[in-house]
Amino acid sequence: MSSDESVSRVVIIGGTHGNETVGPTLIERWQRAPAAVSRASFQTRLLIGNPLAVSRRLRYIDRDLNRCFAAEEAEDEESCYESERARHILSEIGPTGSTPADLILDLHTTTSNMKRSLILVNREPYNLELAAAVQSQDPKVRTFLWLDESLPRRSLSSVARRGVTIEVGPVPNNVLRADQLLATEEVVLRCLDFCEARNQRGGPQAGSELTCFTYVDRVDYPRDSEGRPTAVVHPELQDRDYEALEPGQPMFLGLDGRTLTFEGPEPLFPVFINEAAYYEKNIAFCLTRRETLRV
Amino acid sequence: MSSDESVSRVVIIGGTHGNETVGPTLIERWQRAPAAVSRASFQTRLLIGNPLAVSRRLRYIDRDLNRCFAAEEAEDEESCYESERARHILSEIGPTGSTPADLILDLHTTTSNMKRSLILVNREPYNLELAAAVQSQDPKVRTFLWLDESLPRRSLSSVARRGVTIEVGPVPNNVLRADQLLATEEVVLRCLDFCEARNQRGGPQAGSELTCFTYVDRVDYPRDSEGRPTAVVHPELQDRDYEALEPGQPMFLGLDGRTLTFEGPEPLFPVFINEAAYYEKNIAFCLTRRETLRV
Repeated sequence: MSSDESVSRVVIIGGTHGNETVGPTLIERWQRAPAAVSRASFQTRLLIGNPLAVSRRLRYIDRDLNRCFAAEEAEDEESCYESERARHILSEIGPTGSTPADLILDLHTTTSNMKRSLILVNREPYNLELAAAVQSQDPKVRTFLWLDESLPRRSLSSVARRGVTIEVGPVPNNVLRADQLLATEEVVLRCLDFCEARNQRGGPQAGSELTCFTYVDRVDYPRDSEGRPTAVVHPELQDRDYEALEPGQPMFLGLDGRTLTFEGPEPLFPVFINEAAYYEKNIAFCLTRRETLRV
Repeated sequence: MSSDESVSRVVIIGGTHGNETVGPTLIERWQRAPAAVSRASFQTRLLIGNPLAVSRRLRYIDRDLNRCFAAEEAEDEESCYESERARHILSEIGPTGSTPADLILDLHTTTSNMKRSLILVNREPYNLELAAAVQSQDPKVRTFLWLDESLPRRSLSSVARRGVTIEVGPVPNNVLRADQLLATEEVVLRCLDFCEARNQRGGPQAGSELTCFTYVDRVDYPRDSEGRPTAVVHPELQDRDYEALEPGQPMFLGLDGRTLTFEGPEPLFPVFINEAAYYEKNIAFCLTRRETLRV
């Protein structure tokens, strides 16, 4: 499918992580009242990513479902609940599945102050165009290009070439906040409206610009010999996602009281600062570079 | 022991809930550098409440440890990890234990906007005096008198007659925030300083006043026939802990879009609004009455 082709099947997924409650709540609401997410030019399918984890209010049962979608892992011999679930989802909406998704919207929340983030895992022109359109309508939206080979090609949104992870925060796990519920719904509806307008138009609208934050690196907590963090995100960095971190600025506050500063050669823009689920992934935050793309 | 007697053993407990990371982090820091919590007139003991839950980053393994300390439950036949742990803690620091605690400081965090809360589960004059002293030094401190027979007499802080739960928020579970770490430490040190000054003085300082928030009732989410919440805390109530909720003001936003208002006969003051762990306890928030006590 070229980027000029229209989208005929959109899949909206909530509950890829079972303790992020906004997604499954919206999916259930739309299942009862599907008009909100229905559009004339495409079909909308609603899916709970990890139903067992949702019912148990856990991020996952055995393994992070959102890292189970690399082809080699999905065919992996070492089976667990999430690898089975990934295989099942692929057999339905994957590229060779029974009803392949043309575009996936995967709904997440984060404990970081990520506001209304669109996370893209490739530079697919359609995705960039979608992000530019949504951002131009809503100044609270940020776009994070997570082009880290080790991570996002295993994410659920990468199952289709066109797709975006919608990541809203800050919100604690297992807490349903009305503001984040409404924010997520607003972003989803804007994405659907973009797809609808794009289908009607039949091609890209030239001449847009997209300001985005492109993955550069990840930073782990300082840790002791047993792997336990010996520092906490510095209060001057906490909550400052998408703001410039200048060389020499505080990064961590050691549990011994010492401050560790950022020693980069240039200002970079941290995202996913102090996300609860990333302690085990050895990520205190990711560093990005801000760039403006013609789309 | 009368309220005039001095305190000779203070026990500070962190990790009563294993996914509230501030407490165990402070306990470990003070174990390495005990001078901060040492005072001349009493011994300070440091304790991790639920070590297995801390290591697994879970609130609890089988049952909420902070509801296991009623005498009848601690002697309960139905044994589990937490009931064993409660019996062990009682055998050490309980009233008939080997080294009874004269005063307990139990460190918690909450996803609610509880700021720096002192939670008292009785009207023990010593505790009220402590709360008044700490509040007079720090305007961010609030005191919640949780005199609900069904709940707090089973809490860990109720193991000694003198004791307070220090509850700081908002912070997501399994997230360590520097600001909340420092806030909790500040409140603990003020409590220890009070105990030290009180021991030196040998009696109460007459004539203080304490503004506190006294438990009136709890409010559950509206739920469907399967027990699932059909509404979320209204955005106008979210984060407004300790602020007046007037009759007629919004309380919940139904998932169908309808607003439910507070129909009380008088203004009350909600606390623990949208605490993650209280969904399973059927508490959307507690209602309190603000009162001023002579202590």
